[in-house]
Amino acid sequence: MINFKDDYSIGAHPKVLAAIQSVNDTTMPAYGEDPVSDRARKLIQNQISTDVDIYFVTGGTLANLIMIAGALRPHEAVIAPEFGHINTHETGAIEATGHKIIQVPSQDGKLNPEALIKAYDENTMPPHMAKPRLVYISNATETGRVYTRSELEKLSQICRERDLYLMIDGARLSAALASPINDLNLSEIAKLADMFWIGGTKAGALFGEAIVLSNPELKPDFDFHVKQRGALLSKGRFLGAQFEALFSEHLYIQNGAHANQMAQSLSEGVTSKGFPLQDTTESNQVFPILSNDKIKALEDRFSFYHWANIDADQSIIRLVTSFTTQISDVDEFIDAL
Amino acid sequence: MINFKDDYSIGAHPKVLAAIQSVNDTTMPAYGEDPVSDRARKLIQNQISTDVDIYFVTGGTLANLIMIAGALRPHEAVIAPEFGHINTHETGAIEATGHKIIQVPSQDGKLNPEALIKAYDENTMPPHMAKPRLVYISNATETGRVYTRSELEKLSQICRERDLYLMIDGARLSAALASPINDLNLSEIAKLADMFWIGGTKAGALFGEAIVLSNPELKPDFDFHVKQRGALLSKGRFLGAQFEALFSEHLYIQNGAHANQMAQSLSEGVTSKGFPLQDTTESNQVFPILSNDKIKALEDRFSFYHWANIDADQSIIRLVTSFTTQISDVDEFIDAL
Amino acid sequence: MINFKDDYSIGAHPKVLAAIQSVNDTTMPAYGEDPVSDRARKLIQNQISTDVDIYFVTGGTLANLIMIAGALRPHEAVIAPEFGHINTHETGAIEATGHKIIQVPSQDGKLNPEALIKAYDENTMPPHMAKPRLVYISNATETGRVYTRSELEKLSQICRERDLYLMIDGARLSAALASPINDLNLSEIAKLADMFWIGGTKAGALFGEAIVLSNPELKPDFDFHVKQRGALLSKGRFLGAQFEALFSEHLYIQNGAHANQMAQSLSEGVTSKGFPLQDTTESNQVFPILSNDKIKALEDRFSFYHWANIDADQSIIRLVTSFTTQISDVDEFIDAL
Amino acid sequence: MINFKDDYSIGAHPKVLAAIQSVNDTTMPAYGEDPVSDRARKLIQNQISTDVDIYFVTGGTLANLIMIAGALRPHEAVIAPEFGHINTHETGAIEATGHKIIQVPSQDGKLNPEALIKAYDENTMPPHMAKPRLVYISNATETGRVYTRSELEKLSQICRERDLYLMIDGARLSAALASPINDLNLSEIAKLADMFWIGGTKAGALFGEAIVLSNPELKPDFDFHVKQRGALLSKGRFLGAQFEALFSEHLYIQNGAHANQMAQSLSEGVTSKGFPLQDTTESNQVFPILSNDKIKALEDRFSFYHWANIDADQSIIRLVTSFTTQISDVDEFIDAL
Repeated sequence: MINFKDDYSIGAHPKVLAAIQSVNDTTMPAYGEDPVSDRARKLIQNQISTDVDIYFVTGGTLANLIMIAGALRPHEAVIAPEFGHINTHETGAIEATGHKIIQVPSQDGKLNPEALIKAYDENTMPPHMAKPRLVYISNATETGRVYTRSELEKLSQICRERDLYLMIDGARLSAALASPINDLNLSEIAKLADMFWIGGTKAGALFGEAIVLSNPELKPDFDFHVKQRGALLSKGRFLGAQFEALFSEHLYIQNGAHANQMAQSLSEGVTSKGFPLQDTTESNQVFPILSNDKIKALEDRFSFYHWANIDADQSIIRLVTSFTTQISDVDEFIDAL
Repeated sequence: MINFKDDYSIGAHPKVLAAIQSVNDTTMPAYGEDPVSDRARKLIQNQISTDVDIYFVTGGTLANLIMIAGALRPHEAVIAPEFGHINTHETGAIEATGHKIIQVPSQDGKLNPEALIKAYDENTMPPHMAKPRLVYISNATETGRVYTRSELEKLSQICRERDLYLMIDGARLSAALASPINDLNLSEIAKLADMFWIGGTKAGALFGEAIVLSNPELKPDFDFHVKQRGALLSKGRFLGAQFEALFSEHLYIQNGAHANQMAQSLSEGVTSKGFPLQDTTESNQVFPILSNDKIKALEDRFSFYHWANIDADQSIIRLVTSFTTQISDVDEFIDAL
Repeated sequence: MINFKDDYSIGAHPKVLAAIQSVNDTTMPAYGEDPVSDRARKLIQNQISTDVDIYFVTGGTLANLIMIAGALRPHEAVIAPEFGHINTHETGAIEATGHKIIQVPSQDGKLNPEALIKAYDENTMPPHMAKPRLVYISNATETGRVYTRSELEKLSQICRERDLYLMIDGARLSAALASPINDLNLSEIAKLADMFWIGGTKAGALFGEAIVLSNPELKPDFDFHVKQRGALLSKGRFLGAQFEALFSEHLYIQNGAHANQMAQSLSEGVTSKGFPLQDTTESNQVFPILSNDKIKALEDRFSFYHWANIDADQSIIRLVTSFTTQISDVDEFIDAL
Repeated sequence: MINFKDDYSIGAHPKVLAAIQSVNDTTMPAYGEDPVSDRARKLIQNQISTDVDIYFVTGGTLANLIMIAGALRPHEAVIAPEFGHINTHETGAIEATGHKIIQVPSQDGKLNPEALIKAYDENTMPPHMAKPRLVYISNATETGRVYTRSELEKLSQICRERDLYLMIDGARLSAALASPINDLNLSEIAKLADMFWIGGTKAGALFGEAIVLSNPELKPDFDFHVKQRGALLSKGRFLGAQFEALFSEHLYIQNGAHANQMAQSLSEGVTSKGFPLQDTTESNQVFPILSNDKIKALEDRFSFYHWANIDADQSIIRLVTSFTTQISDVDEFIDAL
């Protein structure tokens, strides 16, 4: 079976494993105060600024819940696109920390500026409604769309005018940064957002995400939140080592670029065979529309998600690529079409 | 100013005040274990069954959060119509106890059976989505609509087939029970729902709601939840006395009936003057559509909510009646039209 | 049976009931924005300062949990004497809002300055221990002890030096202020503490406590917390009316003074009969040491708590007085001794 | 510097790293449904029973908070020894999920049966006190003491008679099982406790703990709790692989045995040099009493904790050994004494 199901049922990049091996044999301070984590933080700061605070945690749900619960007072709410990961596939993790998510309708997974303003206005009725205080978006979105600089600037401006924190879930930031339509770098993202996280798991790590705090209001005591939610690893070096590998020699962006190229090749192959795509391919997800018969046939050799029905005969499928996808995998799929 | 703004900026019914006065002068056991609360509980049980457990609390948000937080495990979620009070005007009180609200689109405030099934199905993906476990509805709804027996039976059946608790917010249950379209009594409600509350505040109390637990699974240790959330009054007799008054000599239903009759008179008056209603009047809320000029003129003598815009010239207003509304208030309004 | 069991199994003061009656008959803005609540807030501010914010809620557990949860970030903890009400008899209400209580050993219910410093020091190990951020004390304490000005100044100073909020649970503040050993007024308390509450329930109200916020940091958005925890009454006038009565014509302090005088008479009577007291009587609680035989005999006509065993033959009992205690009740008890 | 400071500022066992490397190169189902995690679960079940459910998470605080929050209803509390890790060094993680910890005085870190009964009795006052429902102990304790079978049987019996869950924090279970005084195996522990966790991090893993649920009441929907608290890793194979390595060829117990032997050698060396131990050495922690001058001298070459002061001249230090400690490390320390 060739995997187009997701970008996380794979292993880690060999350089990441090698980095872990290389830091194993000595005693180091625990809890992320080790020299490996220091070097990893500096490598990331080199791309942003020494002013940002950086914390490593093992997964995206942990990153999201720590950052949101750490930023908000009890009565404050999050505004998120309806298909934002925190609103759909995190088992109510944010609500479990006490905070309401105000969901905004969204066609493509992106947060539309007018929809954001409308949601803000409709949810402002002190003290009867939870107070909107933080806007959550994902880049790339859950369906692979990528924010442009002007889009992010617009959202950032709306947030600042309304005293809303802007937070970016970067589970697929590697693919976003490497997207052909991307015109943002980490430093600019850190200026436009108040905090975000750099997803390692889908970009070559065993597991690991780097939280970046740029707004000074969000920094004090953040380490307490990491510890309280169970995310402070004693052997923190092993998270640091992974990010040291990912941020050395451009591995992080290369992994995203490779995944995106495979997705582009898939997209071109699918359309060249005469099949439409549901959506333009901006990062590492492709959404072909195929007949149900063809889908059935493909399922013997390829794993992928059945995304949605178009009608009785046709459906949308989702193909996801990663740094491990081979061009031969793509070719096989196109041939099988 | 004549008040059609809401049914809670008024005082209490004189019989309720008299009841409070009458139980003041002796020593009684604290924390709701007094004979007055016992009598009140029995009066309510007389209309339902001795099998139900009854607790008195001071307000609707307290009732909702205690009942929901008491019923659910941490990963379990509530399904509610999008305009359900817990989803809009309780400042995230349910989420503050850790639980997600899955909101269901609704035109008239009621929960549609097909929409409920769809929401259940779309939110079932263990363990990645919070598990739907409780369905919340209001009767009357936030816009005054009333559930019929067949509607409630249908919802109850859907819930039982899916292991979902059915809970009814009865902030305006007095008006619902007294509605011309109502064909349910408290006993039947207690059979179809797993728990509900009987709203006193809008029906003549100073403040007070009676929680009714009929599903035996929900009863153990409920008193702990009441205490933990700050709702266990030491001088519990004063809640009991109010419900003793409301459930003696049919005062509770009479107060609802009076409010409804005033709303019917308002509706008839409005339509007789040639103005349409946005919605049929089923309980104590009326939604006339008027020109903005007329609305402006009415605002000098009457208080009411501007509900929604129809177009540049016309709007919907909301008129709410209560047990204190006089027929002369209604007549004045119709005359002013 | 004559009641010395507690100060809350009684009714309300007649003036409080009269005040409720007197504000019943008109329409007023809901949610505490009514003129009655305004007047009550002003009466309290007259004794403190117009700079303090005041909110009325129905009970002590609600007051405690709203104030503490509103003041703290998720990783912050409360320091409290081990027998502080929040640590013993509130069913984990504070922990249910997410916060640890660090308990400090205490002989007499008071927080000892050295013990406070020790608890602070032993619980400071960022980020591995919850961060001490708020100190909770009760005045009078759960056993009737009263803080002097110098004691409160010392605690206040310790708190300010360590960035700790100082909060006072005033369930029995009426008795504390009226205590012969008290040398503090409300204005001074508001300067030494960051927030506190004035207990109405035990001092003549049906139910009701007045939260006073003096530290400006604690004021923003406090109304959201009141609403979110279910404490914002729609008919807020009925809380306002009670405090208007209690703070007119010195009723609040008179009720405390009466209770204290009854306790003094009890204390003198007990000692004059040759029985020792476990503790000095500073407010409205008396702790005689009696033989178990005598206790048994007294239980036929008087209700009180069996507090603790001294040995096989003797025990401590607790006698609580209130504004309803009659001198004839006291005399009967002394005679029965 | 030779490390006796702790057992977690070290790396992983080479076999653990090799196991991670060996499972890297193929696609596998995500979220712990991979064959590697299956094999690891079976290896552990082989030592207990196929009836237990097993989940892998990355750290001890996560394990503790998921297990406790998953087991308890909102009003239920934990009883724990005062120095239990959840009560001291987890930043209020348990309280952050809403639950009170009732702390029991303890000299040696163990929970004393009489003290447990006393704490249970003193905290039973429904509904005014949080309801004791779960007893938390650590084996080995935070100071290296090990429970014997008869001790654990006694605690288990007390718990079952009172409807209390018994939970064991096994951060150092490797050392406990390998202790000379241990007479329990995993299967017996699973019978006496309702749930426990097997600590990997201190026994050779990079990071990882295995949660074992034996009481059937605790199993339903446990996967939701793991996901909601952020502990469900997408690439679950990397946790499975570590436990497959630890539970193959007795590595888990061997690592504990080695650490314990080093501690025994340290103990013998210290006493042979004429210095007393504060406590008997039962696992991998040693508590010598030394003069402050000697401690100062040792700090140049050895890292360890200054545990407590004995008097002006002498102190207790803590020496911790691990699977990485060399006998030459021990010899150097004894020589330096």
